Amino acid sequence: MLNETGAAPTRREVLRAIGMIGGSAVLYQTMEAWGHAKETQFAGPPNLSGARAGASVVVLGAGLSGMLAAHELRKAGYKVEILEYNNRPGGRNWSLYGGDTYTELGGAVQKVGFAPGNYLNPGPWRIPYHHRTLLHYCREFGVALEPFIQLNHQALVHNSQAFGGKPMPYRDLAADFEGNVAELLGKAIDNRGLDSVMTAEDRDMLKEALRGWGLLDKDMRYVKGNASSRRRGFDRPPGGGVDGAPIYSEPLPFKDVMDSRVWGIVAQHMTIDHQTTMFQPVGGMGMIGKAFGKQVEGLVRYGAKVTKVDQSGGAVSVDYIDLASGQTRTTKADYCVCTIPLGILSQIDIDVSGAKKAAIAAVPYSNSVKIGLEMKRRFWEEDEAIYGGISFTDQEIAMISYPSGGMHSRTPGVILGAYTFGEASYKFAGMTPEQRIEQALKMGSVFHPGKYREQFSNGASVAWSRVPFTLGCCAMWNEETRKEHYQELVAVDDRIVLAGEHASYIGCWMEGALLSSLDAVTRLHKRALEA
Amino acid sequence: MLNETGAAPTRREVLRAIGMIGGSAVLYQTMEAWGHAKETQFAGPPNLSGARAGASVVVLGAGLSGMLAAHELRKAGYKVEILEYNNRPGGRNWSLYGGDTYTELGGAVQKVGFAPGNYLNPGPWRIPYHHRTLLHYCREFGVALEPFIQLNHQALVHNSQAFGGKPMPYRDLAADFEGNVAELLGKAIDNRGLDSVMTAEDRDMLKEALRGWGLLDKDMRYVKGNASSRRRGFDRPPGGGVDGAPIYSEPLPFKDVMDSRVWGIVAQHMTIDHQTTMFQPVGGMGMIGKAFGKQVEGLVRYGAKVTKVDQSGGAVSVDYIDLASGQTRTTKADYCVCTIPLGILSQIDIDVSGAKKAAIAAVPYSNSVKIGLEMKRRFWEEDEAIYGGISFTDQEIAMISYPSGGMHSRTPGVILGAYTFGEASYKFAGMTPEQRIEQALKMGSVFHPGKYREQFSNGASVAWSRVPFTLGCCAMWNEETRKEHYQELVAVDDRIVLAGEHASYIGCWMEGALLSSLDAVTRLHKRALEA
Repeated sequence: MLNETGAAPTRREVLRAIGMIGGSAVLYQTMEAWGHAKETQFAGPPNLSGARAGASVVVLGAGLSGMLAAHELRKAGYKVEILEYNNRPGGRNWSLYGGDTYTELGGAVQKVGFAPGNYLNPGPWRIPYHHRTLLHYCREFGVALEPFIQLNHQALVHNSQAFGGKPMPYRDLAADFEGNVAELLGKAIDNRGLDSVMTAEDRDMLKEALRGWGLLDKDMRYVKGNASSRRRGFDRPPGGGVDGAPIYSEPLPFKDVMDSRVWGIVAQHMTIDHQTTMFQPVGGMGMIGKAFGKQVEGLVRYGAKVTKVDQSGGAVSVDYIDLASGQTRTTKADYCVCTIPLGILSQIDIDVSGAKKAAIAAVPYSNSVKIGLEMKRRFWEEDEAIYGGISFTDQEIAMISYPSGGMHSRTPGVILGAYTFGEASYKFAGMTPEQRIEQALKMGSVFHPGKYREQFSNGASVAWSRVPFTLGCCAMWNEETRKEHYQELVAVDDRIVLAGEHASYIGCWMEGALLSSLDAVTRLHKRALEA
Repeated sequence: MLNETGAAPTRREVLRAIGMIGGSAVLYQTMEAWGHAKETQFAGPPNLSGARAGASVVVLGAGLSGMLAAHELRKAGYKVEILEYNNRPGGRNWSLYGGDTYTELGGAVQKVGFAPGNYLNPGPWRIPYHHRTLLHYCREFGVALEPFIQLNHQALVHNSQAFGGKPMPYRDLAADFEGNVAELLGKAIDNRGLDSVMTAEDRDMLKEALRGWGLLDKDMRYVKGNASSRRRGFDRPPGGGVDGAPIYSEPLPFKDVMDSRVWGIVAQHMTIDHQTTMFQPVGGMGMIGKAFGKQVEGLVRYGAKVTKVDQSGGAVSVDYIDLASGQTRTTKADYCVCTIPLGILSQIDIDVSGAKKAAIAAVPYSNSVKIGLEMKRRFWEEDEAIYGGISFTDQEIAMISYPSGGMHSRTPGVILGAYTFGEASYKFAGMTPEQRIEQALKMGSVFHPGKYREQFSNGASVAWSRVPFTLGCCAMWNEETRKEHYQELVAVDDRIVLAGEHASYIGCWMEGALLSSLDAVTRLHKRALEA
């Protein structure tokens, strides 16, 4: 699967030709032999053989893309140095633990008070099964993974416009939405709504499918009974002994189910970035940054703020402020991999073409605020049978997420109390850390009244527009900027190449940073061989 | 939630009354206060206070129901003895590990060769979030749990009648089925198929929902494009650098999608017994039996085959064969909790009413065969990005399931190579263990040709009709036998009460055994207080 290299149009043409000759059985057998589709563009670590002895590369940034570039280039024989603004590896791959101190732009200082083992992942927090590059290097670098629970049927959905503002279980809403869709399509078929679309035989087969899929009764109705209760839950679930018999539950009024807009959540759970199986590192996402950091130990100069990148003299020369001493220093190398986020890079004097400078300036960054709320007791597990997953709301916090780590233990747990988007992010970023937590507690209480605030012990927040080393969350490309600037941004400019999630089509994901990095070092190496 | 005791009809009447007076907002607020629905009939460990000093109970069977009964009765002050046929606790809760020897009825002996840490769960293998009794005692007794992956979008679906017999990813099939359902309902609405069912406004809102839920394009079509590829996957997924742009995939022909009957699998994943979040014990399901066994250590007489249960003399007298010596012995107690599976119990001379004897004889047991195949390499993870979950087939093996434990490790893994139902179970039970494995390899190879047989190292199988201590899988009640025999089966008969999954409405699940046990000891205790 990983070795498939054929371009898609050619493959399609071949498939079409086979289909015409041999019928669908032969067609599908050929597809099988080729793999159904590629899950990734990752084809294993890059082959960077033949590096010139003594050739050097300076890597700007010890985030995942920078560290992977450094790792692979050093393996290939290059002399590598990394300059990093922070005093830790990982960049946006980062977890906040008890005892950590974090100072945001504006000066607010937070001293994190979480119990040992607990954490907030301010940035990335989940890994899809098809992020093969990241999974490959996690295994290579010894990062222990555990399942991340995304979809939890028992979690809640809150929409202020539905059910009088009361949250309902995702399970009930999803069951009732899809059950009604099945029943309605059945009715529409009976009302001849598909007569012009499919044959009578196909309509009958579709009705059979709808009955099975939507858990309809024998009369094609989604109604109170064993079938629907087996999905949406029972008023009294089956039990043991004398009172073992279940009592069926009544589906919710379809009008209210529609008002909850649950369909958007169902669709979100089914998208490829949220499908099972997802993972997280045991002990926090920051374990990945730490593991990468270990691989490049000794190569990184921490606390180095890059101010100027020059390549006019047949080499790359980088000026940086050593933040510990306040002194400006210069380092030189033959080549440069620059992974500095664009919002920061656009403020640095970098010696690249006007077109690349325009590309660097063209891409705005999203903002988001994440808030971790440590709860003394895992009431969501103990009292409400919610293990991991997400409860959604149309309030500004957008969601709360229950920890996938330490499930079923008696330890305190950190709930992700907000993951804001759009305007709400700037509103939350404008608050003090204390105000953010207060607001998160207020809004999150809708899910767990009488417990949420009562069990709260301490919290932490990160507003990405105030994060000193990124000034935002991640690059927001659109169709136009892609067309005008993307190839310019990623192209090797003499001795300099850019890498990072901003130089990929998997924006905001670690996988994008890594694939971008591998592509960048492959092209830079090729350029070095040609020199 | 756990404390709700109101019977459902009354509650419904009250809700209806509130709805009439205050409108739906008040209605839903009241529902919230009461909890949406009960997730379980478990209300915590039973209160068995006031036991008469010196009163004794003999428990027949050290499966989960028997051990829980013994644990709670001893806590309450009863003198307890357990008689168990096997030489281990757990009953059907059982894992086979490397080094274990298992002899089935008919005499076939299997010496299990799995690598350390690997196992086959012949019986139960997953725990739903709402099995609160089991989860409670797992925590109480220190059983470490980890997520069990049921639904895996990347796993495969094989139907010999579809796609020329080639397996397709569940992801693609589920996406294409639901996408087409959405598009078809949209078309049917346009064709006035729902004009008689809902208002124009509601139809428009439904179309909006269908577009979002089904990932349709702006013209309400489920076609090749970003929306559908975001769910069904890409021909070339998004990447980094120069070739980062994705290539969209073409949905499969709807006719073939229908032929795959994927809707039944989607529905199965959505039923309450298979919803997220599910668990399994770390190290095999048998860890639960072991943990329960530790709680009743010293109370169990292993290798004891019960032959007669008498209660004619103002006490219960149980004859059993001590299998080690071959001698028949007798033990006496004031009361008896009998958890022997009905297929075995019906062959034992037990002193209960004719009606109860009829009940014991009335319930047939299902059969199933499970086969574990140890693979040298986790090719499904490494090569195919399948982590846990189930691939389904219409062949007799019904499914193969990838281990949820040890994911992402470099250790060998045990695939569940068959979980048969119905007639296929008897066919497999009739084979030698070697023939079963050969058949499982042959059928399972459809999913992973060129790897499945090649990576196979060793295997083990359990055919439940040949399991000496149950002679079958679990009790198969139907509507008629429930009506005629269930209450008779569970009723206390003077000094004897029956417990086990067969005395519950959660047949075949450990939760049913436990809830039945709690109900049985509660009633037996009440009967003892009245004595």
